[in-house]
Amino acid sequence: MFKKVLVANRGEIAVRIIRTLKEMGIASVAIYSTADKDSLHVQIADEAISVGGPRPKDSYLNMKNILSAALLSGAEAIHPGYGFLAENSLFAEMVGEVGIKWIGPRPETIELMGNKANAREEMRRANVPIIPGSDGFIRNFTEAKEVANRIGYPLLLKAAAGGGGKGMRFVYGEDELSDKFDDAQNEARSSYGDDHMYIEKVMERVRHIEMQVFRDENGHVIYLPERNCSLQRNNQKVMEESPATGVTPEMRAHLGDIVTRAAQALRYVNTGTIEFLQDRNGSFYFMEMNTRIQVEHPVSEMVTGLDLIKLQISVAAGEDLPVSQDDVQVSGHSIEVRLTAEQPERHFAPSAGTVDFAFLPTGGPGIRIDSALFTGDKIQPFYDSMIGKLIVHGADRSQAMSKIRRIIDETVIRGVDTSRNFQKALLDDPQVQRGEFDTRYLESEFLPRWIESLPKSE
Amino acid sequence: MFKKVLVANRGEIAVRIIRTLKEMGIASVAIYSTADKDSLHVQIADEAISVGGPRPKDSYLNMKNILSAALLSGAEAIHPGYGFLAENSLFAEMVGEVGIKWIGPRPETIELMGNKANAREEMRRANVPIIPGSDGFIRNFTEAKEVANRIGYPLLLKAAAGGGGKGMRFVYGEDELSDKFDDAQNEARSSYGDDHMYIEKVMERVRHIEMQVFRDENGHVIYLPERNCSLQRNNQKVMEESPATGVTPEMRAHLGDIVTRAAQALRYVNTGTIEFLQDRNGSFYFMEMNTRIQVEHPVSEMVTGLDLIKLQISVAAGEDLPVSQDDVQVSGHSIEVRLTAEQPERHFAPSAGTVDFAFLPTGGPGIRIDSALFTGDKIQPFYDSMIGKLIVHGADRSQAMSKIRRIIDETVIRGVDTSRNFQKALLDDPQVQRGEFDTRYLESEFLPRWIESLPKSE
Repeated sequence: MFKKVLVANRGEIAVRIIRTLKEMGIASVAIYSTADKDSLHVQIADEAISVGGPRPKDSYLNMKNILSAALLSGAEAIHPGYGFLAENSLFAEMVGEVGIKWIGPRPETIELMGNKANAREEMRRANVPIIPGSDGFIRNFTEAKEVANRIGYPLLLKAAAGGGGKGMRFVYGEDELSDKFDDAQNEARSSYGDDHMYIEKVMERVRHIEMQVFRDENGHVIYLPERNCSLQRNNQKVMEESPATGVTPEMRAHLGDIVTRAAQALRYVNTGTIEFLQDRNGSFYFMEMNTRIQVEHPVSEMVTGLDLIKLQISVAAGEDLPVSQDDVQVSGHSIEVRLTAEQPERHFAPSAGTVDFAFLPTGGPGIRIDSALFTGDKIQPFYDSMIGKLIVHGADRSQAMSKIRRIIDETVIRGVDTSRNFQKALLDDPQVQRGEFDTRYLESEFLPRWIESLPKSE
Repeated sequence: MFKKVLVANRGEIAVRIIRTLKEMGIASVAIYSTADKDSLHVQIADEAISVGGPRPKDSYLNMKNILSAALLSGAEAIHPGYGFLAENSLFAEMVGEVGIKWIGPRPETIELMGNKANAREEMRRANVPIIPGSDGFIRNFTEAKEVANRIGYPLLLKAAAGGGGKGMRFVYGEDELSDKFDDAQNEARSSYGDDHMYIEKVMERVRHIEMQVFRDENGHVIYLPERNCSLQRNNQKVMEESPATGVTPEMRAHLGDIVTRAAQALRYVNTGTIEFLQDRNGSFYFMEMNTRIQVEHPVSEMVTGLDLIKLQISVAAGEDLPVSQDDVQVSGHSIEVRLTAEQPERHFAPSAGTVDFAFLPTGGPGIRIDSALFTGDKIQPFYDSMIGKLIVHGADRSQAMSKIRRIIDETVIRGVDTSRNFQKALLDDPQVQRGEFDTRYLESEFLPRWIESLPKSE
């Protein structure tokens, strides 16, 4: 096992990883930007090394400085957390080249799954159900029309090399296909120097269901109970839970077969999560794969009793997975909500400043709060606005809902605006309480109602 | 189910109970002394009523004021927590007489088990193994000598009506039996107006093992996995765990049979804990029964997944136990340490004052901190010094030890002296880590070593 590991991240996920390292008896090295010198992850790590200025590109994205810190400290492995460099295949490769173990999949896997069109093609070859659309790439309008006739409208034109929305167009009927195809392809060409396109059907009334999978170097695979992450705003998850209402043990086993097949086809190492859309018939369609630990991993830990960060470290150290699929049992129900330093009342504008007072209501059975927050902490404007995760476990979904509503109610943060009141209203919503929502519910139905309900003097 | 419940307590246990009431959708009424007006239990309750001045006898022991508060608020039941009036049979009776439900056993049971000599006799009749000693009471030296010849020395003379140490003497040999018997009996007579005595053998190299039991009004019984509470100072538990090392499933079932028999014999209602001494042969001997929830109940919740406060409330509302013995499975291992506002370096002198900063390291899997503490909280000199419970759950004892050591290490409280450093040293002790300790270990072996290790300039 490693003697020392560097954590190339900040905030709650850095704290989360350092804590597991401590429990495993592994020395931890934190990195920090000059803005973060008093942050919790710096305080609890065994060592901490400054890697640059406040802006991400100067510090947490500064590959050379992070590599130097790892080499200087004698770290044998790097855990990237999520965000920042976690899905940067170049960095993963550089880490390997200087003889340090990357706690995550091989650089080739990161790169392959990072390209959405390649990932879709790879999954199709592995018999993973994908969203209806083109087989591979298309280059001209004639091919596009063929696909459109087959799958129907609305559809989505996407640039194969894309990912950030460039070269992407919604098409609602045949009359606009030609113009939009030209537009999209031109934009793809000028943005990426690559005019390969692909087409996906627009799925409506769908849920975001995802499943996390582990594969060790010797090819053993386990999958975790699915998570429902359909409550989203601006493509950011707002609340996650496991298991998903309406997913039967049979459906879970079916999804498990799919992700196992995918992990084996990719000769995947370590953990990743495959995100699916689930339609109203209960069918699942591959959306994308995240080749890193996810923000919402605690809900899976709560229902299985596993420490997924510990599993990541063990697998990276070359060990076999210590549990088999039979050991992964779903017990009860877990819900997580993300607390952010934002002003939902003002279009979710980010907030920053000093936390004058923080009360996070730990206590009682089934409560977990993963956060780097403390009274006196400074919320920086440079980084992601997520400041804490409230996580509960109950015997069933209804008990978990009671717990999450109770702890959001007790949560007090002063000095910095947070999403607490918005989250509380969301948890008070009857449809959310019943688990009846698709990926559009929060933005299309809940949010307009909530904004309407705010005092007009704002 | 009750619509409103009054919590006749303060501190972490009041907070703990109010939280479960919230999760059950029951309105909560807090009571408070004038010193506690800004305390957490007052802040999180739905209503809060002042019941008197800072001294316990003026407020938390003030039966008339607490009853008035209950009647005034329309509470249908009272949860007494532990300490204060929790084992006061007169108060339990008064509560019943004004038509309010007592969340605990019947007053007769509280009274019976409160008298140690009667409790011993009652348990003997129920075939519960008791510490070797006299059968019932003895009145004179001749009877005492007969018992002494039978059980051997050292032995303990105890006043039947006693409990607080009055009328109690250790006897190490026959030569001192006569004088000490006279002394003890005289003291018993003058202290309690009652010279009934009884004798127990002094058990050496024993562990404190206890088992919590529930019985509902319809006679259903469940018992929980045993707890090992052998680490004690001054008869106060310092660390508790469940399950106990060295207690096999067969021994657990055997203990379970004993406590079930006791609960049925007493026609017990609600929850109670039977404390046993376990000798080096593995045999158990009844010590006493606590007729209330205990401080250390969370370790049982962590290994079973049950909410024991919720069970108490359900049973008090006349419901059947919602689980059967088969549903009570032991999963993993849990450890609790009690954080106190004391100065262990100065003979555990109590400390008081304002908490300038509190960081309780919630976060990561298997961590729970039950506390009423917050930054800005005032620690009062009037009450028990326990300010928080650090509780962990791991897959096995070794993982639980890693977790508890990690969180005691991260715990920061400024402004008030605490037992944190003492607890940290205790958890660093190899014998504590291996689970090799009896009830004398902490005071006779660990504490002298620890005091010796302190800087001499103190």
